[in-house]
Amino acid sequence: MTKEEVRVITLTKARIKRDNIIWDIGAGTGSISVEAAFQADQGSVYAIEKENKGVELIRKNKLKFGLDNIEIIYGKAPEVLNSLPPFDRAFIGGSGGSLREILELSNKKLKPGGRIVINAITLNTINTIYSLNEILPDLSFEIVDFITVNVSRIRKVKQFQMWQALNPVYIITMERG
Amino acid sequence: MTKEEVRVITLTKARIKRDNIIWDIGAGTGSISVEAAFQADQGSVYAIEKENKGVELIRKNKLKFGLDNIEIIYGKAPEVLNSLPPFDRAFIGGSGGSLREILELSNKKLKPGGRIVINAITLNTINTIYSLNEILPDLSFEIVDFITVNVSRIRKVKQFQMWQALNPVYIITMERG
Amino acid sequence: MTKEEVRVITLTKARIKRDNIIWDIGAGTGSISVEAAFQADQGSVYAIEKENKGVELIRKNKLKFGLDNIEIIYGKAPEVLNSLPPFDRAFIGGSGGSLREILELSNKKLKPGGRIVINAITLNTINTIYSLNEILPDLSFEIVDFITVNVSRIRKVKQFQMWQALNPVYIITMERG
Amino acid sequence: MTKEEVRVITLTKARIKRDNIIWDIGAGTGSISVEAAFQADQGSVYAIEKENKGVELIRKNKLKFGLDNIEIIYGKAPEVLNSLPPFDRAFIGGSGGSLREILELSNKKLKPGGRIVINAITLNTINTIYSLNEILPDLSFEIVDFITVNVSRIRKVKQFQMWQALNPVYIITMERG
Repeated sequence: MTKEEVRVITLTKARIKRDNIIWDIGAGTGSISVEAAFQADQGSVYAIEKENKGVELIRKNKLKFGLDNIEIIYGKAPEVLNSLPPFDRAFIGGSGGSLREILELSNKKLKPGGRIVINAITLNTINTIYSLNEILPDLSFEIVDFITVNVSRIRKVKQFQMWQALNPVYIITMERG
Repeated sequence: MTKEEVRVITLTKARIKRDNIIWDIGAGTGSISVEAAFQADQGSVYAIEKENKGVELIRKNKLKFGLDNIEIIYGKAPEVLNSLPPFDRAFIGGSGGSLREILELSNKKLKPGGRIVINAITLNTINTIYSLNEILPDLSFEIVDFITVNVSRIRKVKQFQMWQALNPVYIITMERG
Repeated sequence: MTKEEVRVITLTKARIKRDNIIWDIGAGTGSISVEAAFQADQGSVYAIEKENKGVELIRKNKLKFGLDNIEIIYGKAPEVLNSLPPFDRAFIGGSGGSLREILELSNKKLKPGGRIVINAITLNTINTIYSLNEILPDLSFEIVDFITVNVSRIRKVKQFQMWQALNPVYIITMERG
Repeated sequence: MTKEEVRVITLTKARIKRDNIIWDIGAGTGSISVEAAFQADQGSVYAIEKENKGVELIRKNKLKFGLDNIEIIYGKAPEVLNSLPPFDRAFIGGSGGSLREILELSNKKLKPGGRIVINAITLNTINTIYSLNEILPDLSFEIVDFITVNVSRIRKVKQFQMWQALNPVYIITMERG
């Protein structure tokens, strides 16, 4: 599950508007989808998740918060993305090694003024994004923000307050002008 | 001005509710006050700032976004805090060396279930917070979250994409149970 | 065991000379002691460790590298420090909650021009060091360097190269002028 | 100039032996060359630097420390590397956009058991290293260590002890088995 700190930065980078069509690719437990659905209360969130367990959790959260604008897509990207409508915002949390294909398809379906925000925890993902202009010569979007976030938190162990690091996350924001 | 990444984490840690009375101590340009005022649309935000320049900026932003629930307090904490009503949430961004006195006063005015979120960029502040139980034996709140956030961003210099670090910020959250 | 990156920074901050008398307090596996003994080949390293397991490891390493200038002290600081000669350099890796007493004793036994380098992984240690001038009004040394080091490394998991964070370490250097 | 903390980690990763032939590419002020020359006292260090100012500084340091085993090469890599003998260790601090060509040449001149340590501060360099197997199909060495180091230090401003971040550095170590 995405840590709170990374999740709120990721959501902020997307600059969601109330009527946005949003894809949440690799939705996991749905923590991004839920918050995005609150912000896009006149739009729709497509929560794409391939694990049965994750789909169950998203379903529960959708019910709990009464979020009718979340549509759960049980399946694997990019395959299941073909049938979805063009989007204004996309979150890519887990790409299962298919980032290139996902971005290729996103390149066709991202609406003007739209944004894609990627959470990368591997060098593989960073490299694919870096090489995007070579991979997709007709790229419709460009990188507008590229950061890495390192969070450490205090954990109490008896009388000691120990520093504990979370793994670094790279957050890359792309925009179609 | 607080960087976007730190600002959104800080706001998230406060868990603002719509009817909250909020103090923003050391409001600076008002970036926290504005967002807090949107979230507490049935409450009030007291933006405390001692610099004339900052007060001007907050006034402009208040007008621009039509946020009638922001009240600008031109002056220095803790002096100006005495006349303010008890609060549900407080942000402490800049304390000008008076953190101890500010927290002493907050100790009396923080409502049950309330939260204080502090952004610390000095060892002095971290140490004052660490020693709070000694300083204020009748402390009504306790630390519930203590993190440090390190953000670096890519900056383009000719054909090079260079990593550039922002200074680390410590974000401490306190709660009255 | 101290990670390689933190260990070499720690050793560098000490500016060891060939004839130095060195205390390694909380020597652990002896990784600092061994390197310090190479650098102070005409001096002595007192490796203080309270765990039987650590003492065994230091003994093995002492033999393996033929370092006759390491003296292993099986016991707990500050108790065992009383019988040791004045020192030029001290490393404090683990203080087991007795940092204050260790520094009080060090204050008497640190030779002019000497250095103490502390690795801190808790807020408790950072706070004790911050408050040192209050605790020991006749302090003979002062802080000359205070850093925090965050290291992350790539770990291969199948075809993925994942970022993994080590916990942050604070390295504080004190000097007697 | 490379910061002390990054410099000592970089040198440690190289595992220098006394008789090593060492290339220091983009030697800058010579801080790596000097320390490498001490460690390889029976070997040679080739300090390659294209800036006149840097060359002057290295010359001064060479004289100051009496390091006859430093040979200063005034010029640009990879051009000047052709005339150099095969090497055991190489440091690449600044590549001026020619990293690919430098590594291509290094691939031929790195001796068995040898190591290359790169300091990267740009995405460009990280990406070139990531793609090395594609670029050089007959690569004679492989990545054995890939880390990023974030250091912040305390700076005193009046009575405040403020955290200040250094820019992150990626340190990549390659070895020919």
